[in-house]
Amino acid sequence: MPTYRLDIEYDGSAFHGWQTQPGLTTVQATIEAALAVALRCPTPIVGSGRTDAGVHARGQVAHFVSAAPVDSHRLQGSLNGLLPAGIAILNVEAAPEGFHARYGATRRLYHYHVATQPRALDQSTRVFLRPPPVFERMNEAARHLIGQHDFNTFCRTKSDTQNRVCTIDRAVWLREEREGDWRFEIAANRFLHGMVRAIVGTLLDIGRGKRTVDSVPDLLAAKDRRAAGPAAPARGLVLHYVTYPGSGPADER
Amino acid sequence: MPTYRLDIEYDGSAFHGWQTQPGLTTVQATIEAALAVALRCPTPIVGSGRTDAGVHARGQVAHFVSAAPVDSHRLQGSLNGLLPAGIAILNVEAAPEGFHARYGATRRLYHYHVATQPRALDQSTRVFLRPPPVFERMNEAARHLIGQHDFNTFCRTKSDTQNRVCTIDRAVWLREEREGDWRFEIAANRFLHGMVRAIVGTLLDIGRGKRTVDSVPDLLAAKDRRAAGPAAPARGLVLHYVTYPGSGPADER
Repeated sequence: MPTYRLDIEYDGSAFHGWQTQPGLTTVQATIEAALAVALRCPTPIVGSGRTDAGVHARGQVAHFVSAAPVDSHRLQGSLNGLLPAGIAILNVEAAPEGFHARYGATRRLYHYHVATQPRALDQSTRVFLRPPPVFERMNEAARHLIGQHDFNTFCRTKSDTQNRVCTIDRAVWLREEREGDWRFEIAANRFLHGMVRAIVGTLLDIGRGKRTVDSVPDLLAAKDRRAAGPAAPARGLVLHYVTYPGSGPADER
Repeated sequence: MPTYRLDIEYDGSAFHGWQTQPGLTTVQATIEAALAVALRCPTPIVGSGRTDAGVHARGQVAHFVSAAPVDSHRLQGSLNGLLPAGIAILNVEAAPEGFHARYGATRRLYHYHVATQPRALDQSTRVFLRPPPVFERMNEAARHLIGQHDFNTFCRTKSDTQNRVCTIDRAVWLREEREGDWRFEIAANRFLHGMVRAIVGTLLDIGRGKRTVDSVPDLLAAKDRRAAGPAAPARGLVLHYVTYPGSGPADER
């Protein structure tokens, strides 16, 4: 049976996260409801991973298996007509045999957006920081995250994931086009629950001088969530890009 | 008495335009209310120009006259604390003697943002166009707008402005960073009521083949609003930058 890949953008502020949960409006359930109408058949989708309530995506990927071949372009139009404004299907395409959005993904790239100056427009994915942190300090500290580590310190305590080892290949704060806007880019083979927000919150502590620049190795060694800083707000976080074998440039997308 | 300049960003979707109107929530009235609290004195402000309901600004400029000197940085903080999220004071500074936000402005630059692909994030200043227009046609047509013309054809019929002559020095559609995103940049010494939206609506007609690329000179010559296309939606329009003598680069800001 043919498999299809969906590329999805969403504004997380309107949803209780990605994953279907009884009685809550989630991105997954909303797309599945639209897909059931468009295909006239209940059709479960599998996402590359969950995002928490309030977290956004520009490049979430999901797949579904269809009983019959589908006109991809037409399905995209139908879904976008059925979905609320907070979800957009950026692309629909036939996927290679055996494509699995979750198990096939080799790398996830997140962006965390902040503003150090007051703003009124397009703030749904941006957190205003006052006072501004020292970005150079945060970048110096972030270098210690690169590589393969046990990230238990940055994993939500309620998580039931056993393996807490992740390999981070990118962790850097960059200036954005507009003066005073910055984003943190972090990429890894996998992320634990609440991991990016715990890392950002800890880096912000460092950027504001509440922790030392070289504190990250000790935090990792502690393997205790209480050692890290508070989770940064969900609204700044965007799942930016998910990489699959053969799916194009894995870097700086 | 000292004069102060305010640089203002706002999300027009929450307001009935810039100008104070009885019984309506406007940007001007909202800022004046905050200013009255911050300065403990009713203080009228004068904007560089009105924007319509739903139109945004990244670079609106206003001035006010204060009975006593003001700490600019502190006032900015107070105002941003008092104002709703849809308005941000980007800067407060003492203005040169005689500074007048409206009569002193020599050039206004507007941006009109569109998307030709579905989007879910940061769409408050962007209009989705389906089918996409041919941007090359619109740029060819837009060249006929440059220069000094009577813009009565593009002026709202209810406007009571007598002089309909404006000098446009920039009118061009540009690709933006994200694939499928474009903006129209238009700059002039002055604009008439509804002028940018009427121009954009007419260019979109041209981009979709409903009017010819060389129709603009005839439209200008008609001096009749009924000759032009429908007004494009307010949500795509942003007052981007207002130029004053000696206030820095007048181009491509």
